[in-house]
Amino acid sequence: MTEQKRPTACLLIIGNEVLSGRTKDKNLGFLAEQLTDIGVRMAEARVVPDEEDVIVAALNEVRAKYDYVFTTGGIGPTHDDITAACVAKAFGKKLIRHPDAVALFEKKYKPEDLNEARLKMTEVAEGAVLVDNPVSQAPGFHIENVYVFAGIPRVMHAMFEGIKHELAGGAQVLSRTIASHAKEGDLASGLGDLQGDFPDVEIGSYPFFSREGQTGVRIVVRTPDEGELETVTDKVCDLIRACGGDPVEETVLGAGN
Amino acid sequence: MTEQKRPTACLLIIGNEVLSGRTKDKNLGFLAEQLTDIGVRMAEARVVPDEEDVIVAALNEVRAKYDYVFTTGGIGPTHDDITAACVAKAFGKKLIRHPDAVALFEKKYKPEDLNEARLKMTEVAEGAVLVDNPVSQAPGFHIENVYVFAGIPRVMHAMFEGIKHELAGGAQVLSRTIASHAKEGDLASGLGDLQGDFPDVEIGSYPFFSREGQTGVRIVVRTPDEGELETVTDKVCDLIRACGGDPVEETVLGAGN
Repeated sequence: MTEQKRPTACLLIIGNEVLSGRTKDKNLGFLAEQLTDIGVRMAEARVVPDEEDVIVAALNEVRAKYDYVFTTGGIGPTHDDITAACVAKAFGKKLIRHPDAVALFEKKYKPEDLNEARLKMTEVAEGAVLVDNPVSQAPGFHIENVYVFAGIPRVMHAMFEGIKHELAGGAQVLSRTIASHAKEGDLASGLGDLQGDFPDVEIGSYPFFSREGQTGVRIVVRTPDEGELETVTDKVCDLIRACGGDPVEETVLGAGN
Repeated sequence: MTEQKRPTACLLIIGNEVLSGRTKDKNLGFLAEQLTDIGVRMAEARVVPDEEDVIVAALNEVRAKYDYVFTTGGIGPTHDDITAACVAKAFGKKLIRHPDAVALFEKKYKPEDLNEARLKMTEVAEGAVLVDNPVSQAPGFHIENVYVFAGIPRVMHAMFEGIKHELAGGAQVLSRTIASHAKEGDLASGLGDLQGDFPDVEIGSYPFFSREGQTGVRIVVRTPDEGELETVTDKVCDLIRACGGDPVEETVLGAGN
């Protein structure tokens, strides 16, 4: 399967606020699109609470399993910000104040404002490399295959943009989306056969229906192989026509996801 | 800890489309709020791809670990809809066509339209109870502590509303949110002390900053104990004032999350 040749990634969203519904996560969708764009396959995402044992266990599980792990949340100055300590513990490393982060903070804050809480934001697992935060300065960090980002979307997005070039991507996946008012239940059998004929192409089927009662389905064809993309897209369009539908291509080559 | 007395839940979001970024999940935030509202604690959420071994392993892990498991996605008529089969496999049950679902479909479809693909949507793990779908009819199902819902938000939300009364909730968590332009780094030490004094109250700190450069922090106090809620909220307000801020309460008792 083509899927398996691409590097894999996992997003670990850390925070009680996401699990309680107070905060709506906006990083999963962003990261999924970005990784798809560079040929890295997000294989899992997990939301975990601010509990040390849970975070450390999840980190150790997923960093062994996937090529890249990204964490969001829990790197601020307060008592509920425990991500850096958990990463250090997961790697069996000491938690240290990174000298470059301390130097940055010494410029940013007056000496009387640079208290213990703010210095907590300079803490990283020993051996980690800082990840730049162009929005609010307090850095993230990177150790082995784990990248530690802030939870605030603007900051997380900026941090990711800063390290994106470091990631080794695989073949970029090309995709086509074909929409129609054909019925999914009519297309299903033909789509299943098509998937059987092209095992390396990912064929997804996503029904939609509007409040006005209009129903239809979007078929998404994904593969790094441009030739197979064309062939399967044509066959999907034929199938839709055979089921009385009028296929409409919504996206073009290279749209990524 | 008060937290531990509440029943726990896990959401399993099933679908390549969420991991590729094509579809932005809208069920996590909804379910988190709904569960918080009835005193069930969402302890984890996980997004997994349309791969049988991954789904079965995740199901067996989380259904043993949490009081409730909710799945979304993968219950349509096409080849990539494998959730029902995975649930059956996880429970070691046969996959059967539920007679009530078949009867429903026999009313909904003309005989010539009731093909194998559509009948796939009547499949459940043997012993399961159907979950009503008032939006588009194709039902979800429920077996032991696992609830299987559609992925389309309108349908998922309607399915959840239909079974919500079956869930045994715990003490409802009350919350207060106090916003201010005080700096998180100034509040952090006092907040940590306060958390130490009230270990059963969850005190969360969420900084914000606008594009205009205004910064501030929202402190969220959560507990089922109304007295402790008042006491801790007052102490948070005092702390904010001591740091030069002007506390503004944004939510009132019973806001849930």
